[in-house]
Amino acid sequence: MNRASMLRELFDKKELVVIVGAHNGMGAKLVERAGFDAVWSSGLEISASYGIPDASLISMYQFVEAARSMNEVINIPVVADCDTGYGNAINVMYMIKRYEEAGIAGVVLEEKKFPKDNSLLDDGRQELLRVEEFEGKIESAKAAQKNPDFMVIARVEALIAGYGQEEAQMRAHRYADAGADAIFIHSKSKNPQEIIEFVNHWDIDVPLVLTPTIYSSLREQEIKELNKVKMVIYANHGMRAAIKAMETVFAKIKKDGGIYDIEEFLVPVKHVFDLQDVPRMKENENKFLR
Amino acid sequence: MNRASMLRELFDKKELVVIVGAHNGMGAKLVERAGFDAVWSSGLEISASYGIPDASLISMYQFVEAARSMNEVINIPVVADCDTGYGNAINVMYMIKRYEEAGIAGVVLEEKKFPKDNSLLDDGRQELLRVEEFEGKIESAKAAQKNPDFMVIARVEALIAGYGQEEAQMRAHRYADAGADAIFIHSKSKNPQEIIEFVNHWDIDVPLVLTPTIYSSLREQEIKELNKVKMVIYANHGMRAAIKAMETVFAKIKKDGGIYDIEEFLVPVKHVFDLQDVPRMKENENKFLR
Amino acid sequence: MNRASMLRELFDKKELVVIVGAHNGMGAKLVERAGFDAVWSSGLEISASYGIPDASLISMYQFVEAARSMNEVINIPVVADCDTGYGNAINVMYMIKRYEEAGIAGVVLEEKKFPKDNSLLDDGRQELLRVEEFEGKIESAKAAQKNPDFMVIARVEALIAGYGQEEAQMRAHRYADAGADAIFIHSKSKNPQEIIEFVNHWDIDVPLVLTPTIYSSLREQEIKELNKVKMVIYANHGMRAAIKAMETVFAKIKKDGGIYDIEEFLVPVKHVFDLQDVPRMKENENKFLR
Amino acid sequence: MNRASMLRELFDKKELVVIVGAHNGMGAKLVERAGFDAVWSSGLEISASYGIPDASLISMYQFVEAARSMNEVINIPVVADCDTGYGNAINVMYMIKRYEEAGIAGVVLEEKKFPKDNSLLDDGRQELLRVEEFEGKIESAKAAQKNPDFMVIARVEALIAGYGQEEAQMRAHRYADAGADAIFIHSKSKNPQEIIEFVNHWDIDVPLVLTPTIYSSLREQEIKELNKVKMVIYANHGMRAAIKAMETVFAKIKKDGGIYDIEEFLVPVKHVFDLQDVPRMKENENKFLR
Repeated sequence: MNRASMLRELFDKKELVVIVGAHNGMGAKLVERAGFDAVWSSGLEISASYGIPDASLISMYQFVEAARSMNEVINIPVVADCDTGYGNAINVMYMIKRYEEAGIAGVVLEEKKFPKDNSLLDDGRQELLRVEEFEGKIESAKAAQKNPDFMVIARVEALIAGYGQEEAQMRAHRYADAGADAIFIHSKSKNPQEIIEFVNHWDIDVPLVLTPTIYSSLREQEIKELNKVKMVIYANHGMRAAIKAMETVFAKIKKDGGIYDIEEFLVPVKHVFDLQDVPRMKENENKFLR
Repeated sequence: MNRASMLRELFDKKELVVIVGAHNGMGAKLVERAGFDAVWSSGLEISASYGIPDASLISMYQFVEAARSMNEVINIPVVADCDTGYGNAINVMYMIKRYEEAGIAGVVLEEKKFPKDNSLLDDGRQELLRVEEFEGKIESAKAAQKNPDFMVIARVEALIAGYGQEEAQMRAHRYADAGADAIFIHSKSKNPQEIIEFVNHWDIDVPLVLTPTIYSSLREQEIKELNKVKMVIYANHGMRAAIKAMETVFAKIKKDGGIYDIEEFLVPVKHVFDLQDVPRMKENENKFLR
Repeated sequence: MNRASMLRELFDKKELVVIVGAHNGMGAKLVERAGFDAVWSSGLEISASYGIPDASLISMYQFVEAARSMNEVINIPVVADCDTGYGNAINVMYMIKRYEEAGIAGVVLEEKKFPKDNSLLDDGRQELLRVEEFEGKIESAKAAQKNPDFMVIARVEALIAGYGQEEAQMRAHRYADAGADAIFIHSKSKNPQEIIEFVNHWDIDVPLVLTPTIYSSLREQEIKELNKVKMVIYANHGMRAAIKAMETVFAKIKKDGGIYDIEEFLVPVKHVFDLQDVPRMKENENKFLR
Repeated sequence: MNRASMLRELFDKKELVVIVGAHNGMGAKLVERAGFDAVWSSGLEISASYGIPDASLISMYQFVEAARSMNEVINIPVVADCDTGYGNAINVMYMIKRYEEAGIAGVVLEEKKFPKDNSLLDDGRQELLRVEEFEGKIESAKAAQKNPDFMVIARVEALIAGYGQEEAQMRAHRYADAGADAIFIHSKSKNPQEIIEFVNHWDIDVPLVLTPTIYSSLREQEIKELNKVKMVIYANHGMRAAIKAMETVFAKIKKDGGIYDIEEFLVPVKHVFDLQDVPRMKENENKFLR
């Protein structure tokens, strides 16, 4: 089964699809091994992996390559954060073609202007497109896809941009009408009440998607009870844990003048080899190297 | 000053140059911020970041792009692990050109056959080139470089391959005579005695390089007292710490059914923004966006 | 229908499949528009497009990207020249995965040692693998493919390397037994007699592939009458015509001191726009830009 | 001498710098061999080489890779067509860094909105930025460059967009004041009078750049006599000649059923090898392969 169909099946069969952010093949494998349903090809993580702001600076080419690299080493779907679609509705069509051919199961497009700024920045430029303009982008995305199971998820930034619940509902409905397969409603309120209010007012049969990065107190059990959310994204926790660990171990090496006392912070080299599928390579060497 | 000259200056002025492995811009920035002298563009880390074995599968193009991405976001030199040089002496010449034009300060070439296998694998294919063949590769590398400060470091794998001290010394001398700017002597003995013996017998004025991944008990202070080692590489500890941290946090999210209790394992999102140089971007937005 | 199945169908239904070399999307489109059956993603053309020798210097990554770029803008299959498979049988397995996921219909693997040299070079290094070694590569390729229709074509270089007809037949049979879907028999004899002799002795039901670059007098009609050849590759004629045209027009501009008298050598700018599918983009702009 | 300084020297010493478009290493080498001063890394050619419209669809990553590939195989400067700078003033700063580190001598930035459309399209979207906005982009580009010789050339599209001479002059002056090292004034009038009028009114000591794609009757001698133009770009003639040649030869192969009568349209294979620098590789093989 192709990955887009796998993702549809998850939406059909699971009460709540739980996906976790990564930015390369190793991260994607760790997400898969931990038992999550799919991988979130995170725009923030990919930009940050380059040490570059998440502001439409890294090229679409690099984003699609990162998503492809993840997809090729795992067996669960990848959902790709595609920001604004890298331009207008024509850019979106070109982008959809590239992501589909890379085997990606679905994409998220957000209603911000290109070049975007990260939604969680205090002083970010949170400018939204006119509704009509983003409708055109959703429609162009749906027109461009070949596999009917490929999902186009519309990300509503109206709460992030301070436009209020009513505008957010209006926009979400318009995007659903334009063909979005799901609505990703974003909030950076620490209190989950903002998101819960949106969900409770949601009155059509198009699934919702949440990413509780800031309102982290909201648990999966509570989300399930809201009854309208089909997917939750833990968008950047792997990278944030990895940075903390690297800072700790680098500081300790520096202070110690050596690596004689850091084993407790590390996986063994052999564990890295396992994650690289070296045992399978060795089997193949035995079969095919002569 | 260009990065190759910076690296030369480090070799001239510091008692021991300490460099740390990374595989992308974020890792390189963390190495720089922790106060190390340079970044090791690690072949194992880059391969592993793709979730692929470290066995000449990832293309030279990808290795050079990884090194370039690191180099572009830091201000300290990058020394690149170039494995076998990706083929013969002609491949080496092409590779040197690409790495130099990417701004890399120096490279390490190893005497193994292409396609190589990781040196630390228990059942790795540790086949070495004939000495003459690798001499030709060192000579071709030196002939190809444009900046006289660019360093070509020869990595001796004779101890790894079980050829013994005498062969290792012979090979190291031959490569130094062929023009290598330094000799990286590799060992996977847990006991540092093997490496110490090699260093103590080293009798010419070409600096040595060590990477104590397996003989991790050897401290920088002891290495300095050996008097002939100029650089130590901590090759893959950032990635190994990152994997452990990601595994821990993913397991906890899975078990908890949420991200409500993982803050202690994470850096804040704002810290990621700082590492991405968002504050500098905001300054530039103020200056140049109108 | 996927491209691999399209290629199989061509082999089943056509008397002779005729494919033509290209190195980028534009060339692939010109091949398609001219009415040929498929595109040959030519190793010589791709290397030459970089201005670099065809000697395993350009990375596999770049070759697969070139093939992908061609595949994404046409509707006929791409058959990719994969040289030696970029290393050993393990490299081949990794390569097959990458080409299949790029949508390529089939690949050609040759029995030369890595790094290879171009077969048509007078003083090329034409060293062949041991038969067993290349059998292992064919078997690993067939084991790695997912789509059963994907074709792995073994390229026999024994005539090029001067080993004679008997050795060439033996090798071709061994590779067919190892699972090759077709045998590409290569010759650089100006007289087609060498190739005709090989074809006439071919006694098993595995299709043959020819590329008459040097023995260019051999016509498709004659090839059909040989009765055992299923595909002919015109490998590099587009690029060779393009170079001649560019040299001519650049010399004339230089001599004339202007572009006032070169129209006869050029297609109009509008024709370039058509080849870029601008009219379809304009339709989409009308539909989706608001 | 670095390439940026070489380009400056050309501007200082030559009456008229003549540069010619290319999209890959082979094309760049042909431009160099024909005796031109520099290579134009053409946005139209690069887009068209992918078979994709010239409308900000191809990523900046791909444009910079194309420019780098050209630069690495020639010894004359590359001037890169950077369209709108791929976004706002922040995108421009990131882009400048990437192009400079790729060794590019200078860039051209145009005052159109992202995503742009090709200037020569009859029905193109020719929307311009506010003057202040583009001034900010010029200033950010100049602030981002490290090598003081690197050139930032502002491309004025006001005549293309139908704004008239006065607006074009005003914009050109404003961009020169903002720091542009030269002004590229673009026109798609078949009659050179439009461009000549602009040049004759140009009253400050900032050099002008022309590209007579449409007003092709204007000769270099006439341009020199205008006394204010320092560079002329023949932007896409190599590709247009190449397409014509490929169409011709492909049609003939198709019609003939073979390649037995096309030699007159082709350079010999050996000529391709020479362009790939195979002879130099063979010398290096003799020196370094053992």
